[in-house]
Amino acid sequence: MKKLKRSARLVEMTQYLLNRPHTLISLTAFADRYQSAKSSISEDLAIIKEVFEEEGIGELHTLAGAAGGVKYTPKIHHDAAISIIQSVCRQLEQPERVLPGGYLFMTDMLGQPELLSELGRMFATAFANREIDVIMTVETKGIPLAYATAACLNLPVVIVRRDNKVTEGSAVSINYVSGSNKRIQTMSLARRTLREHSRVLIIDDFMKAGGTIQGMMDLLGEFNAKVAGVGVFVESGELGTEERLLEDYISLAKVTAVDLKTKQTTVVPGNFFQ
Amino acid sequence: MKKLKRSARLVEMTQYLLNRPHTLISLTAFADRYQSAKSSISEDLAIIKEVFEEEGIGELHTLAGAAGGVKYTPKIHHDAAISIIQSVCRQLEQPERVLPGGYLFMTDMLGQPELLSELGRMFATAFANREIDVIMTVETKGIPLAYATAACLNLPVVIVRRDNKVTEGSAVSINYVSGSNKRIQTMSLARRTLREHSRVLIIDDFMKAGGTIQGMMDLLGEFNAKVAGVGVFVESGELGTEERLLEDYISLAKVTAVDLKTKQTTVVPGNFFQ
Repeated sequence: MKKLKRSARLVEMTQYLLNRPHTLISLTAFADRYQSAKSSISEDLAIIKEVFEEEGIGELHTLAGAAGGVKYTPKIHHDAAISIIQSVCRQLEQPERVLPGGYLFMTDMLGQPELLSELGRMFATAFANREIDVIMTVETKGIPLAYATAACLNLPVVIVRRDNKVTEGSAVSINYVSGSNKRIQTMSLARRTLREHSRVLIIDDFMKAGGTIQGMMDLLGEFNAKVAGVGVFVESGELGTEERLLEDYISLAKVTAVDLKTKQTTVVPGNFFQ
Repeated sequence: MKKLKRSARLVEMTQYLLNRPHTLISLTAFADRYQSAKSSISEDLAIIKEVFEEEGIGELHTLAGAAGGVKYTPKIHHDAAISIIQSVCRQLEQPERVLPGGYLFMTDMLGQPELLSELGRMFATAFANREIDVIMTVETKGIPLAYATAACLNLPVVIVRRDNKVTEGSAVSINYVSGSNKRIQTMSLARRTLREHSRVLIIDDFMKAGGTIQGMMDLLGEFNAKVAGVGVFVESGELGTEERLLEDYISLAKVTAVDLKTKQTTVVPGNFFQ
């Protein structure tokens, strides 16, 4: 890269860091990249850090020493997050979203990349300090959320299938009981997508009793993998806690009541905000 | 926002633009946001434009006049793209990827957010000048590619399902014949996810004869929607052109030969590079 003026270097470093979240970049690498003294690089990083933190874009951590460097951790401020989720709750309460069986239609919301990126940032904030190797979800609606989170945490994604496709090679399948409708279902994961002993963050779009997530946990057991956390976009709070299979999870929103007759729904911010 | 120094403003404007691709931002909005003269904003934008274009991050177009402003269009340089795709081709040629039926295992590659973001940038470059309202894909493996493209083009995504889920509400279903194995299959799209007369970019991970994509096109017909383009990650070039159902598409890579006995595969850059 040719030597840049300070102003151009700031633009370049900003985009470079934003594209490499949760990645330690050594000051030497930056100094080489921009043919500049480490002291100038440090000054630039201080400016970037201040803007990122003031604007709620995330944190910039500098590690001193020979193995040191700088790491960008995407985060979202509580105020910004709650204002987004409150708007999400109002949208989810629209009467036309109530479907037979008390489900809420939310496919359209999970099709908006900008909203997904904010939701991913919330999960990335919640799980920033966990040791995670990979993010897991089950097809279909959880997939975009898992990728949005993975982009912030710089992690790969594995997708559990509800069938067993020829294009996946050999797979491990388990049967599980969906907690809410008590039906036995199958899920499977391709053998070569997950290494043994991986630490796995489970992300899904919706949780009622938690049967599907419990199924994913059982599947992880088959790979000798470990659950590092569970994040769901919307949880249903209609069940009593004794019916819930799962206790340790982060939710972004919570449906507290669905009246099938009047189509009135109440949706409140999830336990991420407590 | 409090008034920023020039250096901090450059950092802030860079992240602001990167987070809002394909969005026209008026100079007045920037001037208000940073409490700065439009002339200073224009100077800053000139610096950002130069870095974005030199580094191959994308283009910054300035539209003059009262309705004017600036728009960031993510792009990828041909050289950077071809070097990424060549590495993709080498990975796809690994003998252990050959599955029964001549399929190639590529789920792991579609699980890497960084690679996906580059592939999305390639599709965004290919389709930057088309008029598109929405991106469509069919579950499951095409989903992350569709979202990566959508993030660059600032567009919503709709997902065609292979079943008809209760959580989607009423849906339109069609039967289609998968071109490669001649089996009749079903796909469906929730009524409320796609507006009539939408212009739709179809994105998928793999295309052999094109039966699945032809199915999506037929489904679009049911919504009076129009195909604005077709992009596939990998196409199989093993078929004669007379067997291919589809002619106008962009591919990023092309499998030209799979030898099931020796597990030797040849993968070359797709027609995007021609």
